[in-house]
Amino acid sequence: MLEQTLDLDALIATVNNLLDAAGDDSSTQKTVLLEYLNELQPFDLANVLSRLEFSKQLAFLSILPVDTAAEVLSHLEFEHQYRLLDHADEQVARAILAQMASDSLVDLLGAIHPLQANEILKRLPPEDLDHIRQMMTYPPESAGGLMTVSYLSVRATWTAEQVIAHFRKVGQTVEEAGYVYVIDQYGRLVGVASMREVILAHPTTPISEIMVTKAISIPVDADQEEAARLLSQYDFTSLPVTDRAGRMVGIITADDILDVVEEEATEDIQRLGGTSPFDSHYLRAPLTELYSKRIGWLLVLLITGYLTGTIMSRFENLLNEVIMLAFFIPLLIDAGGNAGSQASTLVIRAMALGEVESRDFLRVIWREARVGILLGATLGLFAYARALLLGTPADLGLTVAISLCAIVLISSTIGAILPIIGQRIGLDPAVFSSPLITTISDAVGLLIYFEAARLIMGLS
Amino acid sequence: MLEQTLDLDALIATVNNLLDAAGDDSSTQKTVLLEYLNELQPFDLANVLSRLEFSKQLAFLSILPVDTAAEVLSHLEFEHQYRLLDHADEQVARAILAQMASDSLVDLLGAIHPLQANEILKRLPPEDLDHIRQMMTYPPESAGGLMTVSYLSVRATWTAEQVIAHFRKVGQTVEEAGYVYVIDQYGRLVGVASMREVILAHPTTPISEIMVTKAISIPVDADQEEAARLLSQYDFTSLPVTDRAGRMVGIITADDILDVVEEEATEDIQRLGGTSPFDSHYLRAPLTELYSKRIGWLLVLLITGYLTGTIMSRFENLLNEVIMLAFFIPLLIDAGGNAGSQASTLVIRAMALGEVESRDFLRVIWREARVGILLGATLGLFAYARALLLGTPADLGLTVAISLCAIVLISSTIGAILPIIGQRIGLDPAVFSSPLITTISDAVGLLIYFEAARLIMGLS
Repeated sequence: MLEQTLDLDALIATVNNLLDAAGDDSSTQKTVLLEYLNELQPFDLANVLSRLEFSKQLAFLSILPVDTAAEVLSHLEFEHQYRLLDHADEQVARAILAQMASDSLVDLLGAIHPLQANEILKRLPPEDLDHIRQMMTYPPESAGGLMTVSYLSVRATWTAEQVIAHFRKVGQTVEEAGYVYVIDQYGRLVGVASMREVILAHPTTPISEIMVTKAISIPVDADQEEAARLLSQYDFTSLPVTDRAGRMVGIITADDILDVVEEEATEDIQRLGGTSPFDSHYLRAPLTELYSKRIGWLLVLLITGYLTGTIMSRFENLLNEVIMLAFFIPLLIDAGGNAGSQASTLVIRAMALGEVESRDFLRVIWREARVGILLGATLGLFAYARALLLGTPADLGLTVAISLCAIVLISSTIGAILPIIGQRIGLDPAVFSSPLITTISDAVGLLIYFEAARLIMGLS
Repeated sequence: MLEQTLDLDALIATVNNLLDAAGDDSSTQKTVLLEYLNELQPFDLANVLSRLEFSKQLAFLSILPVDTAAEVLSHLEFEHQYRLLDHADEQVARAILAQMASDSLVDLLGAIHPLQANEILKRLPPEDLDHIRQMMTYPPESAGGLMTVSYLSVRATWTAEQVIAHFRKVGQTVEEAGYVYVIDQYGRLVGVASMREVILAHPTTPISEIMVTKAISIPVDADQEEAARLLSQYDFTSLPVTDRAGRMVGIITADDILDVVEEEATEDIQRLGGTSPFDSHYLRAPLTELYSKRIGWLLVLLITGYLTGTIMSRFENLLNEVIMLAFFIPLLIDAGGNAGSQASTLVIRAMALGEVESRDFLRVIWREARVGILLGATLGLFAYARALLLGTPADLGLTVAISLCAIVLISSTIGAILPIIGQRIGLDPAVFSSPLITTISDAVGLLIYFEAARLIMGLS
């Protein structure tokens, strides 16, 4: 941000001073402060606000233009939003609430305690209540849960001139001004025109000649990932949302989708790491949450892990005969686990990006089998060379090398197909495959190792 | 997409028929086809094109309006783009190239063979050459590599009316029409106004009264992740890019950032899974690439894995005395590895989201130590109860239970601090911690287990 980088500390000091001075009701000071703040983005103003004393936060909020205050608020954490709205002057709170984007408002109402939400609902403009209550019924991760209801809608018969005149009237309240949505008398979406085309068109051109009639839209109950996919494929900055009857009910904007993409990536990463989706701030989450999101997976793995003990006990004689066999067990099962998790991570991500589908099952097996042989052979050769160099008994060295090769081959293949199986039976690929891959590759690895030992080393 | 869902097969058949008919130069057929295609999005047209015979692809491209053709092209794979441009009629190719967004063009030039790139450069409008050559010097993952140079720039003294008149003149060529960028006589960015404010303003208002002077911008050499962060924080749909002198050189649009966020998430996920960043299509990547991106990590882990063998050989007597001790080794080291990878995944992601910084070192240790005790105690109690129920010797059961508790505690803590250490020494947290966590938790786990056995079971 070059020289424009914000010096947050200096800024907070200035705001503090100006707030103190403005407290004396000296309107000059207030004007200075306001002109100063008008140049800042809501995101930065929210950062400034968070670092003020609570009483000054309220003063700060009430001094901002109400639409800015509403945007600033939406950058804060939900509990903080509620506390400010609860303590603010009744008039101020009502004015801010009336200006808040419907999606921010619904997110807030869904995140706080129902009793608190009721307090907020009481202060909403009565004409917004139905809309908001309706929006609260959509699951938060659906298109409906993500949309905002302030957009520009016009009729097909209007001219470009009329559209612009209409925009001049309502433009301040729409969330996204890049597109004009054309609806019929039933509210059904019949076309979309970009504001650019409207401005570029001759003033008397009817919007029906400018608009595209095959408008891309998303059903209100579709998953938010579908919305992200559409926006990124079509390079739109916003996407209309329609109900079952094809009536337009809202729009989803690209900035909300950015958050969705970040959030989904976080969830995928956490599932791969063996944690239930965890969207709290790491340092602020209660310990009980950190515990409860992790214990389930660890317990499942512990229970399935006992299988390895059962397998080993079956080969107790072998181990008693050559205790050195035990020394390579951690190495072998780790190699299998690592190769398996590489393969499953690649396939899980490829599935998320739409590159691999469940009908590619055989192609994936064939790929991984070949890559697995290459990887296994490399590791096997390395292990064998090391055994020769360090004077490990030749037959033990060969046993380890051959087992390594077979374990990596099999684990890669299993790691790649588990996510596909998970999806086929309707489970999240990461949740399904992450715990299984360790257990399966451990069990298969031990069986291969002991059988190889029996064959190569002539044990019984 | 409700009833608007595209039936791609039907569409391709229609296009094929219309192309055949249009081939007879019957202009009615051509008009029908064009009207039909005008309703489709470039992304869908690209899908249709990909499924035609190559000769028809060329006919299809030449029939489209040239700006649409340029957009359609940018949705294809780079080799495909080149092949079409190379085989297209010289005039058509030149016209399409002149219309392509500068970022798409630079991406294409960077992806194909330099000799092919030269062929493309020859067909570019001479006035664009300097711009494009300059843009090719920016690293692909920098702001400069992501930006496009077609934006709306005006002077501070212009009125809203003049800005709109200017937009009417050049509007067709700008990539993003949501913002108006205000520059001084040296080309330096002095302000930004949203097109919405310009339209809503009184026609004679100078732009200097509408614009925000503290414009958020990004230096041309900044990382693309920084651009993603700014756009998502500030909820902009585009971001101006400036050079070292503060001169505006381009804009980055939200749709490009969506791709960046997807790409970065993919890389993070792959690093966590132990693969070098792998941006090829999984099913289309050559096997050698799948091999080379994976073998390095597997070899490193194999080499460090020999440490576990060394540790176990030191406790050979113990194992010889009670061979059952070996049966629980896979279970214990897996539990440690799983607890460690949970912790490091959470911290790596929290660091990527800016929630945890390297100065939070002690806070992270303190959190994980407490969560680790809870997790370890739960698993330990479970293991002890199971041992009692299944008649495992009591002292062995106790050894396993206590080791499990200690291993989970220590692995969680180590797993959480490794990413922070990685960042401190300037390495990618995931690349640094993923291989280490397995090795360290294995080694520590074995040491704890054998020492516990010695103490509790009275072995020597």
